[in-house]
Amino acid sequence: MSNPTEQSIIDYIRKRFPKRRKELVEGIGDDAAVFRNGFVISTDSFFENVHFAMSYFTYYAVGYHCLGASLSDLAAMAASPICAFISLHLTKSISMKEIDQLHKGFRKVADPFRCDLAGGDIVTSPAFGISITVVGRSRRVLFRSGARPGSGLFVTNFLGLAEVGRRVLHEGLPRKDYPVSIAKHLFPAPRIQEAQGIKRYAESCIDVSDGLSTDTFHLAEESRVRITIDAEHVPIHSEVGEYCSKKKIEPLDFILASGEDFELLFTAKHVPRLAGVKIFRIGQVTKGSGLFLSARGKEKRIEPTGYEHLTQHGN
Amino acid sequence: MSNPTEQSIIDYIRKRFPKRRKELVEGIGDDAAVFRNGFVISTDSFFENVHFAMSYFTYYAVGYHCLGASLSDLAAMAASPICAFISLHLTKSISMKEIDQLHKGFRKVADPFRCDLAGGDIVTSPAFGISITVVGRSRRVLFRSGARPGSGLFVTNFLGLAEVGRRVLHEGLPRKDYPVSIAKHLFPAPRIQEAQGIKRYAESCIDVSDGLSTDTFHLAEESRVRITIDAEHVPIHSEVGEYCSKKKIEPLDFILASGEDFELLFTAKHVPRLAGVKIFRIGQVTKGSGLFLSARGKEKRIEPTGYEHLTQHGN
Repeated sequence: MSNPTEQSIIDYIRKRFPKRRKELVEGIGDDAAVFRNGFVISTDSFFENVHFAMSYFTYYAVGYHCLGASLSDLAAMAASPICAFISLHLTKSISMKEIDQLHKGFRKVADPFRCDLAGGDIVTSPAFGISITVVGRSRRVLFRSGARPGSGLFVTNFLGLAEVGRRVLHEGLPRKDYPVSIAKHLFPAPRIQEAQGIKRYAESCIDVSDGLSTDTFHLAEESRVRITIDAEHVPIHSEVGEYCSKKKIEPLDFILASGEDFELLFTAKHVPRLAGVKIFRIGQVTKGSGLFLSARGKEKRIEPTGYEHLTQHGN
Repeated sequence: MSNPTEQSIIDYIRKRFPKRRKELVEGIGDDAAVFRNGFVISTDSFFENVHFAMSYFTYYAVGYHCLGASLSDLAAMAASPICAFISLHLTKSISMKEIDQLHKGFRKVADPFRCDLAGGDIVTSPAFGISITVVGRSRRVLFRSGARPGSGLFVTNFLGLAEVGRRVLHEGLPRKDYPVSIAKHLFPAPRIQEAQGIKRYAESCIDVSDGLSTDTFHLAEESRVRITIDAEHVPIHSEVGEYCSKKKIEPLDFILASGEDFELLFTAKHVPRLAGVKIFRIGQVTKGSGLFLSARGKEKRIEPTGYEHLTQHGN
């Protein structure tokens, strides 16, 4: 889809559909909508050959991947899941066994959070797909718009792994060389617990679904601040280093553009050590606007090199 | 999809995913899930050539039809809409003008209820489709399971019109002869106001989406009662009579099997005249179980002749 783009459609909708209801604190524009009663709701859709490839996904992995990615939107707002509504878009060839595998995947990722399946729809579709709406709750919601000058930029865990995993599977590279990356692409872990750990300290948050540069740009834009990513402080996982070396790609460029890691990217004045939560400080927030990269003592403005879900993975 | 059927998948899911969260009053099994705080949430998906045909639908009508059908699930629970989450599954050929028309359709059906658009997702899909999650609220929710012996069975308005409209458009019959039916298929009105009118009196409610026989059967099953439809009291609209006469179909059989009228089917001890609400009494609830038809003084058990969304409209 060269024209219109996802962003142009979102801009169109935001302009023409202003929030009117007092029950809504925040509507279109963040990872999820936030209600005055503390409910947080988000919806996502996934299609075969657009978001996942059945050449290397099992039905179990599809279930896990799609619901994991959906629950990540709740983590980004520091909300705990209550339940999910799942619409299955099924082609006529699907079997009951495959539906069973799909649901085992849903359960595997949902059960640790006691997330119920509360409803859904089942329709025949020309293409296999899944639409998921997740409902969560939070007493203190983190928005994209809370970043303040003087804070640091943090991320939970390494980035770029999911995209390495996707490419390794897509290109048929040896799976044994990239176990962490492959697991990350197939079975993304929504950072629900981590969000509960950081929410006391974080002032803004987003999940890394569109790539480090695009998601950091969102934080800067929505918070009306300038954010600088420190090139030297972005951690590079050995599998990302390995893949980039093989493909002669600069690892930092790769990470700036890689999506679907579903790690939390947040700003905070400081974050203490949190048990079981890996956190890297990779930049800082200052007055101004825009996205910058600092390397060898020099800062330069960079553009979001974004991971466009509309055009990635497509046939 | 000959195997598995929609019902077999729902049965599978209901059995394996029991409601666990105390925040949920009712999960899978009614028109919408009900939360303890009064929120009511439902999700539906629609695809071209399965739920609507672009040979006679405009994008405006698609927007109206899909959101209207979704809001009907809130009406069935006597909930008032707060907002909708809309996922667009777009093929690469769609234009910004078509997206604009689609959203004008969403607005037209949503605005009378001050229903906000609170979020969504935009993805590339091999087939044009829409997934919608609606969020509403009610202080007194109507369930399918509330029917009690001694009550009457009521419906708001004539039935069968939407299916006549669909067939007339599909078969290319003269549109001028079926204006009410065509409008009913393209632009279904969710009976939100009507639900507010009847909720003081009704004890159970469902919207007629799967056909009179199937939806009455659902009320009987979920309420563990016997419901008898009085053949003589089912009103027949002149356009339904006209179409059935032309096709040599018994109008009552047609109405029992026709879906997507999105009228409210409910049980109550009595219903007073309500300003602006058309209501027909078409049967009664007694002790026992199952669905019966009464004609010329004789009652016979009938099967739900169901409108299967999985197999209708398909190519």
